[in-house]
Amino acid sequence: MSVNGNIARVRVALDAMGGDFGPRETVPGALAALDAHPNLHVTLVGDPDPLAAELSRHDTAHRPIAVVPSEGKIADDEHPIAALRRKPRSSIVTAMQLLRQGEADLVVSVGSTGATMAAAVMTLGLLDGLERPCIGGNFLGLAPNTTLVDLGSNVDCRPSLLLSFAALGVAFSRRRLGIANPRVALLSVGEEAAKGSRQVQESHALFRDSHLNFVGNVEGMDFFTDKADVIVCDGFIGNILIKFAEGLGSALGPYLHRQLAAILPGDAVREVTEALWTTTNLARTMGGPLFGVAGLVMIGHGSSTADGVAGAINTGLLCHRIELAAGFRQELAELRRTGVLEA
Amino acid sequence: MSVNGNIARVRVALDAMGGDFGPRETVPGALAALDAHPNLHVTLVGDPDPLAAELSRHDTAHRPIAVVPSEGKIADDEHPIAALRRKPRSSIVTAMQLLRQGEADLVVSVGSTGATMAAAVMTLGLLDGLERPCIGGNFLGLAPNTTLVDLGSNVDCRPSLLLSFAALGVAFSRRRLGIANPRVALLSVGEEAAKGSRQVQESHALFRDSHLNFVGNVEGMDFFTDKADVIVCDGFIGNILIKFAEGLGSALGPYLHRQLAAILPGDAVREVTEALWTTTNLARTMGGPLFGVAGLVMIGHGSSTADGVAGAINTGLLCHRIELAAGFRQELAELRRTGVLEA
Repeated sequence: MSVNGNIARVRVALDAMGGDFGPRETVPGALAALDAHPNLHVTLVGDPDPLAAELSRHDTAHRPIAVVPSEGKIADDEHPIAALRRKPRSSIVTAMQLLRQGEADLVVSVGSTGATMAAAVMTLGLLDGLERPCIGGNFLGLAPNTTLVDLGSNVDCRPSLLLSFAALGVAFSRRRLGIANPRVALLSVGEEAAKGSRQVQESHALFRDSHLNFVGNVEGMDFFTDKADVIVCDGFIGNILIKFAEGLGSALGPYLHRQLAAILPGDAVREVTEALWTTTNLARTMGGPLFGVAGLVMIGHGSSTADGVAGAINTGLLCHRIELAAGFRQELAELRRTGVLEA
Repeated sequence: MSVNGNIARVRVALDAMGGDFGPRETVPGALAALDAHPNLHVTLVGDPDPLAAELSRHDTAHRPIAVVPSEGKIADDEHPIAALRRKPRSSIVTAMQLLRQGEADLVVSVGSTGATMAAAVMTLGLLDGLERPCIGGNFLGLAPNTTLVDLGSNVDCRPSLLLSFAALGVAFSRRRLGIANPRVALLSVGEEAAKGSRQVQESHALFRDSHLNFVGNVEGMDFFTDKADVIVCDGFIGNILIKFAEGLGSALGPYLHRQLAAILPGDAVREVTEALWTTTNLARTMGGPLFGVAGLVMIGHGSSTADGVAGAINTGLLCHRIELAAGFRQELAELRRTGVLEA
């Protein structure tokens, strides 16, 4: 195991069973990440047999890799909390325990999002002042500086929950995207405070009275108009939006191919359509941090191949370096201090 | 005024004051539609002075045009119902009265959507069994056979309202898109019945027990996967989605321009990016019918120029020919007959 002298080693616990493909993609993903990051150490957490089988296909001698055995994985179609109780030694729970025990600096998973969130909350706990975690981030290559919370973890959010998610989004926008005083907006159907769902109307007053830099309501096109840096909606809408963008991007590929095939060589067409796919499927290629748990947990897309796994690890290293978790803590403390959440 | 012998004349009452530009675009839009449709007659409804000023700039002798004077217009930022009370002789109300009195076959407006809907409900009334009207249609060139209801008129819908909107969407899908037995789905965050917002979970049982060809829940990417013909969500989400698609399409234009400018001649680049804009901004170019009122009312985009006005008239003629309003009536009657709405 090599440790680089000056650069602090960062230890990733990888849920090697996660995702649609398990070790077949997570192991090569980890190896690709190790190639790119000399100060990275990866602990592969998973069922010993399939892990060993996949590892035997690669030369891992003298690589900074460890294996920690676990039992079973939690599938996408299982109820997260029930499954966690049934499988207390599953890969995702074991990875979280490594983080809690200080044997890892962050967890990376491309497994069931629900199970990853539930395992993180049960094992690491939530940050003070928070009822539930969420997922957020910049999810569109065409709007690289716009953060959306919640990207899909909580449906039917009360206004106070949306406000705490907004604070987490602000911390992400500030630390990850370098925006000093992020403008926060509620996603609605018109700019007027009186427009929108009951949820948005009730949230509006709470946001206005908070310490956040609230600029009011924005609309669906405003992901692309630079009116706000952090756009807040509940996870029902966030999930629909991110999947809609992915679907639209995927449909645009063949569409553009038809438009361009007659006037451009095949290589050039492929390059354009692939770049387009990437820019509308950002979350698939880079993963994102779980917002609001006491530790750094990265969630990648379930359909990730090795590239996606390496991308999620890469984003995780970045979030670790900028101390994103500390930023979350700080912004929530400010929210508690100003007392709006008690109202 | 010319009347074509064999083809039945179709009489459009056009809210000439509507939209961001008023007569300056609605009048040339009407003239363009008349050029394309020899059996069309248009009644321009609006303030006499601005209408006369615009008409004086065109040669309208021997054209099948009439003018009916009205007083005032209702702006986007006015509360629709209060404004209708304050301006009972406004262009949109006057146009609706022509339809109710049998002096027009359909109304076309690119004015305030809220005011158009409210004026239609107050003047024409709702179809039996319906609480509120909605807007629906195929809104994406990339998913030309997928109908979305509600596209943005009703936030916070109860399950029974969503079910009646679904029936209207089925009528549209059948008559307008020629789909014999449209598959109906609820827009959610997962296919499982237990996933989704409370609204979706409660609606699921109601849809399942209805006479509709309900195929369950679909997700954001399923506008592009041919799993359902009619996708149902409340207007809050529908409005956000349609505006998101428009914004994404508009942002993709400059993006593709950068990608293609170095490898294609300017004309070809423009052609590709313009086609892309059109396919993601379908609603802007063709308008759509109001669902559920006792008469045919077409709503075009507020930013429509003459082309958009002509497009909305053109779509209106098509909806008139296929007797869309009768389809709506029939599908709602079936819903009442099966008694699900009473449950």
